[in-house]
Amino acid sequence: MTNDAFYMDLALKNAQAMKGQTDPNPLVGSVIVNDNRIVGVGAHLKAGEAHAEINALRMAGDKAKGGTIYVTLEPCSHHGRTGPCAVAIAEAGIKKVVIATLDPNPIVAGNGVKILEDAGIEVITGVMEDEARKMNEVFNKYIVTRKPFVTLKAGITLDGKVASHTFSSKWITSEESRQDVHQLRSENMAILVGINTVLKDDPALTARIQNGRNPIRVIMDSSLKIPLEAQVITDKQAKTIIFTSQRYDKEKRKMLEDLNVIVAETSGIEHVNPLEVVTTLGEQGISSLFIEGGGNINATFLENKLVDKVILYFAPKLIGGKNAPTFLEGTGIDQMTDAVNLINTDIQRIGQDFKFIGYPNYDNE
Amino acid sequence: MTNDAFYMDLALKNAQAMKGQTDPNPLVGSVIVNDNRIVGVGAHLKAGEAHAEINALRMAGDKAKGGTIYVTLEPCSHHGRTGPCAVAIAEAGIKKVVIATLDPNPIVAGNGVKILEDAGIEVITGVMEDEARKMNEVFNKYIVTRKPFVTLKAGITLDGKVASHTFSSKWITSEESRQDVHQLRSENMAILVGINTVLKDDPALTARIQNGRNPIRVIMDSSLKIPLEAQVITDKQAKTIIFTSQRYDKEKRKMLEDLNVIVAETSGIEHVNPLEVVTTLGEQGISSLFIEGGGNINATFLENKLVDKVILYFAPKLIGGKNAPTFLEGTGIDQMTDAVNLINTDIQRIGQDFKFIGYPNYDNE
Repeated sequence: MTNDAFYMDLALKNAQAMKGQTDPNPLVGSVIVNDNRIVGVGAHLKAGEAHAEINALRMAGDKAKGGTIYVTLEPCSHHGRTGPCAVAIAEAGIKKVVIATLDPNPIVAGNGVKILEDAGIEVITGVMEDEARKMNEVFNKYIVTRKPFVTLKAGITLDGKVASHTFSSKWITSEESRQDVHQLRSENMAILVGINTVLKDDPALTARIQNGRNPIRVIMDSSLKIPLEAQVITDKQAKTIIFTSQRYDKEKRKMLEDLNVIVAETSGIEHVNPLEVVTTLGEQGISSLFIEGGGNINATFLENKLVDKVILYFAPKLIGGKNAPTFLEGTGIDQMTDAVNLINTDIQRIGQDFKFIGYPNYDNE
Repeated sequence: MTNDAFYMDLALKNAQAMKGQTDPNPLVGSVIVNDNRIVGVGAHLKAGEAHAEINALRMAGDKAKGGTIYVTLEPCSHHGRTGPCAVAIAEAGIKKVVIATLDPNPIVAGNGVKILEDAGIEVITGVMEDEARKMNEVFNKYIVTRKPFVTLKAGITLDGKVASHTFSSKWITSEESRQDVHQLRSENMAILVGINTVLKDDPALTARIQNGRNPIRVIMDSSLKIPLEAQVITDKQAKTIIFTSQRYDKEKRKMLEDLNVIVAETSGIEHVNPLEVVTTLGEQGISSLFIEGGGNINATFLENKLVDKVILYFAPKLIGGKNAPTFLEGTGIDQMTDAVNLINTDIQRIGQDFKFIGYPNYDNE
C-alpha cells in the first residue's frame, strides 16, 4: 500500500463509521499529515454540522500548516454553515490535497479543486476513487437524479428458483442471509413488493434486527386487490404507499385512505408504471429503494433499466422444475447477446450461502 | 501448518502432479523424513509401475531406517508387482507411518495399517484426509461401486437460465470458462448429452485444448432420432454410444451400427433409463462421466441420485423470461425442505464468471 492509499484508507474508515447518521449528506472522512505524522483526523458526523475537513483541521490546529490533507470527497466550494472547505484548507496553510472522488454533482464538480489550485496548492485526485464512490452510491445517484438508488434482492436456489413448482418457498436461504436482508431493509428508506407477494405471504416488510429502522413499505397493486387486514395495512410499523394503475377500485381507495394508507395513481392503464413509482418516491425525498419482488416485479424494473444494484443470496441447493418460478420472469430478453451484464461483481460466503453483488450495465457495447 | 501437514502437503503435491497418467490407479504421493530432514519423495507414476512408497524408499535407501513415512493413501497389503507396500515399509526399518486416507475399498481398508502395527510401527491416519480423498474422488467411487463418478456441468446466467425465451444461448459464459470445460472434458472418460442438444447444436463434444483427450460420447436418444450426419456420428474423433428406450427404430439402429456407432438398449419403455446408462458405462471400464445435458437430462440424473458433483459457471448477466429454460427442469422437487443440498461447496472467479463446485448430499436429515 502506498502512503497515499494508507492515509486515504484511514479517511475512508472514518467516513464509513458514520453510516446511517449523515443523511441526507454523504459520508466523508479526512486525514491530515505533516512531516510523516498524522496530525488530524475527521469525519462528517451529522447533516448541519462541520464537514470532515473542518473537523480534521480543528484537530490539527497549527500543525496543519505545510501539511497534506486527505479527503474522500472533493472539498466544497459553496458557502454552507462552515464556509467553503476549499477556502478553509487554503487558509490553514495546507500545501497538498489528496482527493478520492470529485463531487458527484456535475454542476459543481471541480469547483473545489479550482479554488485550491488557484491558491497554489498541489491537488491529486482519484486515490481509492472506487471505494469512495461505492461508499456513497446512494447519495451519488440521488443528488444528481432525484430518483432513489434501486437495489434488487433475491434469495434463490442455485438453479435460480424462488420456489418449487408447488410454490413451496420456506426457507431457501440460511438464517445468516435472512439477517443480512433485515440489515439491508434497515439501510434502505423504502421497500417494494408486488401485490402477489402480499396475497401469498402477507409480509410485514420490517427490519427485524436490533436498532433496525423500518423502511416505508411500497406495494405495486394495479387494481387495489390488497386485503384491508394485510399486515402492511394494519400493523402501523411504518408508512405504507400503494401504487396503482388506472383500473383501480375507487371505493377501495377510500377505504384504504381511511386506514391512513397512501394510494398513488400512475398513468399505466393495466399495470403500474414503474418509472412513475421511482420518480414519485424520489420527489418525496426517498433516496433508496429495496425491491423484494417476485419474478415479474423484478423483470419490470430491470427491463425499464431502473435497477442500480443486484444482490443475490444463492442457497447451495437444487429444486428443479420447468414450472418452478425463477427470480426473473416476464417475457425476458430475446437474444443472449443482449442480456444485461452486471459489472463490479463480488461474491462472498454468508453462512452456508453465497452473497452476490453486481451493478447492471445498461450500455451494452 | 504442523510438521505433519507440511510433509503430507508435499506428498499430496507430488501425487497431484501425476493427474491423468496413473489411470486406472489412484494418485498417491509419499515423503520420508529422518532426523528432521526429507530423505525421500515419491509418487505413483503409472499403472504397473512402483507404488509411491516404494519410489520414496528407493530414494531414501539406508536413510529410511528409523524414519517417518508420509503417504497419501494407506499402504497396500496385497501382493502386486512390488509386493505389499506395508511389508516393504516395515522391512526398511521405518518407525512411524502417517497416512492421509485409508483404502477406499471397504474390503481391504485397514489391512495395510494392521500389517504395520503388527510390525510394531506407530501409525497415524487422517492427516489432510479431505484433500487426499478429493484428489481421488473418481477412483474412490469407481473402485467400490464400479459405476462412473458423475459430474453435472452447466453454464448459466445468474437467473439460472441456459438460453433466452427464443432459445438464444450463444454465448453465456466467458472464453475462460469454456476453456475450463474443455479441460474437464479431457479429464473425463465419457461425456453425455441428450438428443435435443444434438438436434439443436450438433456439438462435437471433443476436448479442444492442447493435449486434450477426447472423451467417449454418450447420447441419450430414446427413439433414435439422431441424424446420420450429426458430428458425433461422422467425425470419428471419439467413440460414440447411443442409449435408447424400448421404442427405438430397428432399421435406424442398423444404419447407425453400420457407421460404427454403438447402440445400447435400456429397459425404459418411453425414456432411456439413466441408471442402466451409468451401470453399462461402468461395466465397460468408464470411471468418470461428464454430463452437459439440458434441463431435462440434468433433472433425470439428479432425481435418480446419480450425480456426484455439480459444476456451475455463472455468467454475470441476467436474461429473464418465464419460458426461458433453466439448467434444471423436469417436474422438480415438491417441497423446498426436500431440495437437494450441495455440500463441500466452493466458488471462485474464472474470467468474468464464477465457477461453483458442490457435491449433492442425498441423505437429507
